[in-house]
Amino acid sequence: MIVNEELRLFLEEIKEEIEKQMPSHIERLSTPSTLKEAMVYSLKAGGKRVRPALLLATLKSFGKPVQLGYEMACAIEMIHTYSLVHDDLPAMDNDDIRRGKPTNHKVYGEAMAILAGDALLTYSFELVSMIAHNDITPEQKVSLISELAKASGPEGMVGGQVADIEGENQSLTLDHLVYIHTHKTGDLLTAAITCGAILANATPQEINDLRSFAFELGLMFQIKDDILDVEGDSIKIGKLTGSDDENNKSTYPNLLGLDGAKAKLHEHKDKAKDFLAKVNIDQTLLLALTDYIVERDH
Amino acid sequence: MIVNEELRLFLEEIKEEIEKQMPSHIERLSTPSTLKEAMVYSLKAGGKRVRPALLLATLKSFGKPVQLGYEMACAIEMIHTYSLVHDDLPAMDNDDIRRGKPTNHKVYGEAMAILAGDALLTYSFELVSMIAHNDITPEQKVSLISELAKASGPEGMVGGQVADIEGENQSLTLDHLVYIHTHKTGDLLTAAITCGAILANATPQEINDLRSFAFELGLMFQIKDDILDVEGDSIKIGKLTGSDDENNKSTYPNLLGLDGAKAKLHEHKDKAKDFLAKVNIDQTLLLALTDYIVERDH
Repeated sequence: MIVNEELRLFLEEIKEEIEKQMPSHIERLSTPSTLKEAMVYSLKAGGKRVRPALLLATLKSFGKPVQLGYEMACAIEMIHTYSLVHDDLPAMDNDDIRRGKPTNHKVYGEAMAILAGDALLTYSFELVSMIAHNDITPEQKVSLISELAKASGPEGMVGGQVADIEGENQSLTLDHLVYIHTHKTGDLLTAAITCGAILANATPQEINDLRSFAFELGLMFQIKDDILDVEGDSIKIGKLTGSDDENNKSTYPNLLGLDGAKAKLHEHKDKAKDFLAKVNIDQTLLLALTDYIVERDH
Repeated sequence: MIVNEELRLFLEEIKEEIEKQMPSHIERLSTPSTLKEAMVYSLKAGGKRVRPALLLATLKSFGKPVQLGYEMACAIEMIHTYSLVHDDLPAMDNDDIRRGKPTNHKVYGEAMAILAGDALLTYSFELVSMIAHNDITPEQKVSLISELAKASGPEGMVGGQVADIEGENQSLTLDHLVYIHTHKTGDLLTAAITCGAILANATPQEINDLRSFAFELGLMFQIKDDILDVEGDSIKIGKLTGSDDENNKSTYPNLLGLDGAKAKLHEHKDKAKDFLAKVNIDQTLLLALTDYIVERDH
C-alpha cells in the first residue's frame, strides 16, 4: 500500500524503535507490577504510530537526527494510548476489543484501566521534562510541554472528546463535526508536527506554517477514517466497518455523501501541500506521509 | 483550633485566593461548557487547601512573595482534585458524597467525571509551563514540571493508589502501609514543599532537607487522618467516622493501637522538626503548619 519505498523504510524503522522504547521507559519504573503491566499492555497493543512518525519525519525534514525526538515521540504516543484506554471504558465507548485484542479494562479491570491511563498521561510529561540531549534547551522543553498539554487538555483532545459525547445520537452540522475532529484527533497530530519543529529549532513562522499544514492533515486523517468505516476491509482496520453508522455517529460520508467526503479529503490534501510548500525544508517524507494518509487502506 | 494567629490569617488569605484563582483559570478556557462546569464543580468543592498552603508557606519562609507561587499552587491543587474525582468513581471507591456534596460523577455522570479529571491533570501541566513571572527561569519550570509529574505519576500518587487498591481486605504490614501513604498522599505534599523551594531558588541541599521534612510531614498527615477516622467528629470531617474500620482498611490505629498511632505521630513530628531545623529560613509558618497537622480536628 505504501508506494514510496523511502517512507516504508522510515515507518518500519521508527515503529520498531518506538515499540521498543515505550515499554522500556515503563519497565524501569519503581511502581506496583500490575500497574506497569497494564500500562505496557496498551503501549504494546499495536497501532500505526502515526504521531511518532509525523514528529520524527518533521525533525528529519529539517536535517536533524531522529534520535533527538524519540523521548518526545514516545510521550505523544503514550498520551494517544492513554486516551484510547479511557475512551474504551464502559462509561465511555464501552469497547471490548481494540486492534483485535481485549481492551485494557477487559484484562485488568476498570479501576486499573483508569489508573493506567492516568499514569501514562502523567508519565508523558515527566518523560519530556527529563529529555537529556545536550542540544535541547530548557526553553525548548517548556515549549514542548506547553504544546503537548494544550493539545491534549480541555482546549484540545479532552474538549473534542466531550463535544463528541455530547453530539452522539444527534445530527450534527459540518462545523460541529470539524470542531470535534480538530480537537479530538487533530490537535495531538498537530502537536506531533509542531513538537518536531520545536526540537529542530524552527522559526516561529515555520512553526506556524507547519501548524496550518498539520491542521489540514488532521482533518484528512479523520475524513479518511470515516471513509474507511464505510468501504474499508474490517480485517485490515481491526474493527467492524459500518460501526459509525450503527452507532448513529455523524460522519463526513453521512453529511456529504461518500463522493462529497472524498472530494473534501482531496481539498484538504491540496491545502495541506500548499502550506507545506511554504516551509524551506526537505519535504520528501512529509509529502509521502500526506499521500499515505489519503491512500491508506486501514 | 488553629492557635497560631499568624498561621490562621495566612491560611485564610491563601485559601480565599486559591479558591478565586483556580476557577478563573478554567473559566477562561475555550472548551465545551459542561466540561468547564464539571472541572470547576470539584475545584470549588472545598477542602483545606493544604498543598497550596505548604507551597506558599515554603516560599514565604525564604522571604519570597507568595504571588510568585500561585500558578504552581493552583496546579498542585488541581492535581489533588483530579485524583479525588477519579478515586470517587464507581469503579474505584464508589463514593457518592465528598465534603458533604455529591461527588463529580453523581452530578455530571461517569464519562464526564473521567474526562474532567483527565482535563484537570493535563491542564495543571499547561499552567506550570505558562507561568509568566520574569523571575522564574525555564530551568525552574522544567524542574517544577518534573517534580509535579514524578509526585503524581506511576512512581508517585498513582502507584500509591494502586498499592492501596491491591491491599484492600488484606492485613498489611506497617511497611506496606507506609509505602501506600508515602506515595498516595505523601509525594504530592512533598512536591508542594519542594516546588515552593524551587520557586524560591533554594540550593540542592536545602531542597533535600525540605524533602526529608516533607516526607515526615506526609506520614504525620496520614496517621492523623487515620486517628481522626477513629475518634473524630464526623460532621467536622465531612464523612462518617469509623469508615476505615468498616471497609476493612489497614490503618495505623489498627496496626499499632490508638496509643501506638499517636506515639508514631509524635515521633514523625519530632523528626520533621529536626529536618526543618537544618534549613536556614524563617521557620515560623512551617513549624506552625506542622503543629496544625498534628492538632487539627478535621
